[in-house]
Amino acid sequence: MNFRAEIDIMPLKELLDPQGKAVSSGLKKMNFTSVEDVRIGKHISIKLSANTKEEATTQVENACKKLLANPIMEGYKFELIAE
Amino acid sequence: MNFRAEIDIMPLKELLDPQGKAVSSGLKKMNFTSVEDVRIGKHISIKLSANTKEEATTQVENACKKLLANPIMEGYKFELIAE
Repeated sequence: MNFRAEIDIMPLKELLDPQGKAVSSGLKKMNFTSVEDVRIGKHISIKLSANTKEEATTQVENACKKLLANPIMEGYKFELIAE
Repeated sequence: MNFRAEIDIMPLKELLDPQGKAVSSGLKKMNFTSVEDVRIGKHISIKLSANTKEEATTQVENACKKLLANPIMEGYKFELIAE
């Protein structure tokens, strides 16, 4: 079966996000005054094949832990879509 | 009302994504052999206030067009969550 994993990797809440702060002040200067907070991370879309959804989940979890996210600074969450 | 916009900004399909290619070959070298394709973009989470969901949608659309996404190279999609 083919799956698509849509992964969001975001800076942990406890940490400052300078890129987000910069975009937030940029938006305010452009008259988006209702903006309260901006946080910026990565979005990764992976196509993979696996026999079951559980197997695909394990693979994506491992990929996040071993390569995609830096656990000291980032958290991840993902959604698996069968294709 | 308070809303949270979860925005994905991804390189257009027609374009090469060198960062995605690098991660894809990295994953393959780490024995994630079932990975077929990887694309990497940005994920932006914005907290904002607006009177209605329509107003919030318009604001996020404008922010994407004017600052967050580069329409020549990137596409965007977003989801609005009332908080």
